[in-house]
Amino acid sequence: MQRRKFLRTTGVGAAAAAASGAIAAPAIAQSAPELKWRLASSFPKTLDTIFGASEIFSKYVAEATDNKFQIRLFAAGEIVPGLQVADAVQNGTVEMGHTASYYYVGKDPCFALDCAIPFGLNARQQDAWMNWGGGREAMADFFKDYSIHAMPCGNTGGQMGGWFRKEIKTVDDLKGLKMRTSGFAGEVLSKLGVVPQQIAGGEIYPALEKGTIDAAEWVGPYDDQKLGFNKVAQYYYYPGWWEAGPQLSAYVNLAKWNELPKSYQAILEAAAAKAHTSMLSKYDTQNPKALRELVAAGTKLTPFTAPVLEACYAKANEVYADTMAKNPRFKKIYEPWKQFRGEEVLWFRVVENTLDNFMARLSASNKI
Amino acid sequence: MQRRKFLRTTGVGAAAAAASGAIAAPAIAQSAPELKWRLASSFPKTLDTIFGASEIFSKYVAEATDNKFQIRLFAAGEIVPGLQVADAVQNGTVEMGHTASYYYVGKDPCFALDCAIPFGLNARQQDAWMNWGGGREAMADFFKDYSIHAMPCGNTGGQMGGWFRKEIKTVDDLKGLKMRTSGFAGEVLSKLGVVPQQIAGGEIYPALEKGTIDAAEWVGPYDDQKLGFNKVAQYYYYPGWWEAGPQLSAYVNLAKWNELPKSYQAILEAAAAKAHTSMLSKYDTQNPKALRELVAAGTKLTPFTAPVLEACYAKANEVYADTMAKNPRFKKIYEPWKQFRGEEVLWFRVVENTLDNFMARLSASNKI
Repeated sequence: MQRRKFLRTTGVGAAAAAASGAIAAPAIAQSAPELKWRLASSFPKTLDTIFGASEIFSKYVAEATDNKFQIRLFAAGEIVPGLQVADAVQNGTVEMGHTASYYYVGKDPCFALDCAIPFGLNARQQDAWMNWGGGREAMADFFKDYSIHAMPCGNTGGQMGGWFRKEIKTVDDLKGLKMRTSGFAGEVLSKLGVVPQQIAGGEIYPALEKGTIDAAEWVGPYDDQKLGFNKVAQYYYYPGWWEAGPQLSAYVNLAKWNELPKSYQAILEAAAAKAHTSMLSKYDTQNPKALRELVAAGTKLTPFTAPVLEACYAKANEVYADTMAKNPRFKKIYEPWKQFRGEEVLWFRVVENTLDNFMARLSASNKI
Repeated sequence: MQRRKFLRTTGVGAAAAAASGAIAAPAIAQSAPELKWRLASSFPKTLDTIFGASEIFSKYVAEATDNKFQIRLFAAGEIVPGLQVADAVQNGTVEMGHTASYYYVGKDPCFALDCAIPFGLNARQQDAWMNWGGGREAMADFFKDYSIHAMPCGNTGGQMGGWFRKEIKTVDDLKGLKMRTSGFAGEVLSKLGVVPQQIAGGEIYPALEKGTIDAAEWVGPYDDQKLGFNKVAQYYYYPGWWEAGPQLSAYVNLAKWNELPKSYQAILEAAAAKAHTSMLSKYDTQNPKALRELVAAGTKLTPFTAPVLEACYAKANEVYADTMAKNPRFKKIYEPWKQFRGEEVLWFRVVENTLDNFMARLSASNKI
């Protein structure tokens, strides 16, 4: 009450109280309350670029609120296991999470559309879908069932296809291949004979070294180099067609979100945008150097052949058809998403690809 | 003082006062003062996607501050002519501006590096340079001389090469061509015989219709369609190699910036990031439909030939060499920028281009 009285004397009381949603949200009646939240990340601190996005996010929230709204970060496993962030936010164990939604395809494949699906949108196209293509609304409707308010909060950019101990020259070479991968990518690859293996980050290296697995995909040059995969597998394939532009998301427990003053909601949304653009551009800055070093140390940078990509694309479409048949909600989001993807690819064919390809040719002939 | 007293009673007074930079910035001693600023845009409201970025920016600032910090927007010409925004911010005529820095190459070519130069960075690479590649620091050092704090605030994505009344099959076809373009692009093209014409947006159509000019570049399908260029020129060329990813910037008068509490600085930075990602993705969503409609109405979508692009690239490098010789500061920023561009293009050649090109081939064969 004292706050209200003060505000009234400065002539903005009524407006501020209304803007803060004080009446609709009695739990937090002040327009600038002191809050201490916990954010559970799905990522270890060693993935410093992804974890760093949550650091940038919480830093901006603290600064924008004169440190009144503090969000404490916990790396994967500190208070919540990395792959249980959605549950923890849903249950209110923590107010917030930072995660990759495709980790939860086991609950519902719709989660993946918030992050990446095979032959999906690149990072910029994903932004377009989320911001103006109906994606944010479609996903909000879905996330409501999990009591989650989800905000785009980072992207890795297109990932690599992973590390292989032998060459993949034909589609047949995929048969029987034991590969660390998961989710939709695993489903697609298993249709071509791959045996997908779910292995946590820290255990990939020994599995690859011992030959327990033949291949493993992780992220991209910067993160892969740190785990030393180049020492135990020679071929570094690209592109990771299952992750053309995987989006990270900041999850807020929906009840907690609704209790926030409008000003804090705006601050969280804007801080997420700051972290979003910052993370992608950090990977884009770090990856070239790491890639150069890997290649200089003997890694064989190898593209998947067109027939391999085409076979994977055909199988991905089978997986989507199967998923739509089983899950009407997936169908409802996927069909307009697919239409949107077609429009984006059409547009990118014109200016972006033409100019990127011209610059690439200059680069290949050392004219840049 | 009453505010301080209130804050102290809630136990956050000292911290808030310290965080707000109250001691360092005596002009605005409150941690959440009421401010009314004016922002002069370089753009008319008809360029609704670009002007819209400033609307998103001011909306988030208002929401984040419970409407305490209000930024009123003025379209080009309302209080400041569109191409004089930098001066108005520098002089303190307005507290803020929203502009494309390359408008000011006449003052110093360094301005262009904040926005776009021929055969420069695409939108994502520009973000990487600004956020982690030293761009923000290099430009801040430059902008200090103009009393401007500049923040990235939007990008159009790669632009089209413009509307031509006749085909450009060879480099010779450029000779004597009167084309609406300006800045570095005009310099490069004039080395190949083009006669660059500086014409304001609203006057391009009649000039093209009458044949006073032979060609004109504006933005991309969405904006170009609104001005009706397709009715007076048949050939729509791509890519606009002089604008691979032009960045818009929000300018704040540096003294005004330094007076702000830290919380407001954080809010402005985060709101600019929100507008930044929002604007690019809006163009990416709007352009495909407009392009389809233009082509359906008879526009001939035509790529510049490789020899034309190569000739322009060679001339661009001459322009940069000339500029470096005359302007040591340009040299100081351009040389590491060029190195950075090389690294970015190298990295994009791997995952991004390969996957984009695969998707483009699917699109071209109607398999998407």
